[in-house]
Amino acid sequence: MTKKVLLIEGDGIGIEIVAQAEKVLKAVNEKDNLGLEFDYGMLGGRAYDQHGHPYPEETKVKAHQSDGILFGALGGPQWDGKTERHLRPEQGLLDIRSDLGLFANFRPATAFPQLVDAAPLKPELVSGLDILIIRELTGGIYFGQPRGIRTNDQGEREGFNTDVYSESEIRRIGHVAFQAAQKRDKRVCSIDKANVLDVTVLWREIMEEVAKDYPDVELSHMYVDNAAMQLVINPKQFDVIVTGNLFGDILSDEASMVTGSIGMLPSASLNEKSAGFYEPCHGSAPDIAGQNVANPLATIMSAAMMLQYSLNAPESAQKITQAVNIVLDKGLRTRDIQSEGCTIVSCSEMGEAVVEAL
Amino acid sequence: MTKKVLLIEGDGIGIEIVAQAEKVLKAVNEKDNLGLEFDYGMLGGRAYDQHGHPYPEETKVKAHQSDGILFGALGGPQWDGKTERHLRPEQGLLDIRSDLGLFANFRPATAFPQLVDAAPLKPELVSGLDILIIRELTGGIYFGQPRGIRTNDQGEREGFNTDVYSESEIRRIGHVAFQAAQKRDKRVCSIDKANVLDVTVLWREIMEEVAKDYPDVELSHMYVDNAAMQLVINPKQFDVIVTGNLFGDILSDEASMVTGSIGMLPSASLNEKSAGFYEPCHGSAPDIAGQNVANPLATIMSAAMMLQYSLNAPESAQKITQAVNIVLDKGLRTRDIQSEGCTIVSCSEMGEAVVEAL
Ligand SMILES: CC(C)[C@H](C(=O)O)[C@@H](O)C(=O)O
Ligand SMILES: CC(C)[C@H](C(=O)O)[C@@H](O)C(=O)O
Repeated sequence: MTKKVLLIEGDGIGIEIVAQAEKVLKAVNEKDNLGLEFDYGMLGGRAYDQHGHPYPEETKVKAHQSDGILFGALGGPQWDGKTERHLRPEQGLLDIRSDLGLFANFRPATAFPQLVDAAPLKPELVSGLDILIIRELTGGIYFGQPRGIRTNDQGEREGFNTDVYSESEIRRIGHVAFQAAQKRDKRVCSIDKANVLDVTVLWREIMEEVAKDYPDVELSHMYVDNAAMQLVINPKQFDVIVTGNLFGDILSDEASMVTGSIGMLPSASLNEKSAGFYEPCHGSAPDIAGQNVANPLATIMSAAMMLQYSLNAPESAQKITQAVNIVLDKGLRTRDIQSEGCTIVSCSEMGEAVVEAL
Repeated sequence: MTKKVLLIEGDGIGIEIVAQAEKVLKAVNEKDNLGLEFDYGMLGGRAYDQHGHPYPEETKVKAHQSDGILFGALGGPQWDGKTERHLRPEQGLLDIRSDLGLFANFRPATAFPQLVDAAPLKPELVSGLDILIIRELTGGIYFGQPRGIRTNDQGEREGFNTDVYSESEIRRIGHVAFQAAQKRDKRVCSIDKANVLDVTVLWREIMEEVAKDYPDVELSHMYVDNAAMQLVINPKQFDVIVTGNLFGDILSDEASMVTGSIGMLPSASLNEKSAGFYEPCHGSAPDIAGQNVANPLATIMSAAMMLQYSLNAPESAQKITQAVNIVLDKGLRTRDIQSEGCTIVSCSEMGEAVVEAL
């Protein structure tokens, strides 16, 4: 049975890093006889330039027919403030999340042992770190209505957004988090600001309710400001973190930096059918785009995640993860993760090294 | 000319730490002949227990007559879920901020050289760190209307809050930030999420406008997710950070942990008349309350900040800061900042040591 994979480079370093992940995917496809079929689509700034929309109709059609989508990154200074707001590159990402119903965003924050010494935190705080952040991705203040800029009663302009979650939206992401925790250390920490925000009062209540279905999993609650602190002083206390769209955006980025392994971290965004959208945690890094120095490993790890969650090929995923570790053990590093005694390689050399290690 | 100081213990360790700051304030008052008059008020959980409201009428009257308010901390498990939502301890804090119009919250994140080695980050990232975070404190999603929990068209409950800022609210905090930067390294970084939230599109626009009045100050913008990352990998890049209520809550707490000096960090909340409310950055720590082991230094530093900003006694403020440094140099530490070779002292011993060092 063939499975359809859609590859989307996006902008900036997206082009070069997706190219490396493609090599790796094609290598395991052949080796493990996975029957993957590849197609290509566009999203973001270059998509807008060519098709007049950051999430073009053609990509939309292909996305709905795919079993897995591997994406690079999007955006860059050439589009900043150049287009109408609903046509900026980022809107392409928000649109595809919404269109495919990708409500469950998995962002592992794991420390690669080979990179612990390069982390900003002291090694003892980072070594062995393994958190799974589950971020609600299609609700909350990102999509809440009403929103906009209006003139108020005093005759001045005011900007406004609505943060909103319904019971069913909270319940749905709650189940995802508890089920993920069952396969791990069986602890869910739900992050909210229930001492101030009504929307998270309901969030907390529903999480308590969902927890009753998972007596084997321990639920705790933490305020978002405290979570931002705990990720710095004691990140290893967490197993699974579940939170809303905005807090998830902030905390998952903070956590990825804490690991010292941001150049390595993948992410998955899933919908009810578990067709999924996979992308590295990092951005499009326009400053180094086109120079063949970007780190393709987070994208390659995202390809592995896609094989596991969406393409029913967990063993091939495992092989890719192993190959990445072999390459790191050999001391190969792209510039961003360089450290003493290691060999600096280019983006494409890194991709080829992973293929070889397979 | 006498100046009125209102001391508010609050709950938990608030009681013991404010007692130490009071000793210190009374010592400089006498020594420097400041003419300070002291009064006492209540706020938070114990205020609710005694007066039926976390911000009792009596405190309100005194607060409006004060030149400076020194506060400890509030809240504790005995009040969690025990009172109606609008009577919980935290509401006392939100109410006093709103009632006094304390829109400008100053949260310095500075690393005390004596404590750098105890920070979670590597010493080279923390040493010399000196950021001033300016958080808008009376607007945004903390106070925005409408808010609540309602039944939606699908017949299920949904929680909702409104994030809203008017031009004048943004402009007002913008001026505060630029003026603060003029006395420092002349750089303001405004944090928003203008790629997603309309309210921060206006925020960014108005910051640009305010910047025109301060040609000597450099303005940059950063998305909140990136800021959460940069505070971990390169906190020293910042001079003044200005942001809204919610992002300020999260980022200032994160930054305070990065310094390794959370037990030392004061904060000031000012209104248009610069009557001010001063409190430590940390919370009420119910787990260690009443044991005389809490660290009073952040409250003592808050008293110093009050002398400087609200009581027109910058030299006395300076003396307190010096005394705190002397005590640290002597190797005295409360439990939370203990490190090898230092002498552990109790909360009251620490307070007395500071008085002595004056
Ligand atoms: C690009 C932006 C809209 C996006 C977000 O805020 O969700 C990004 O920061 C992310 O986390 O994927
Ligand atoms: C106690 C709480 C309401 C408060 C806030 O969120 O503002 C606290 O976290 C703070 O930062 O002062």
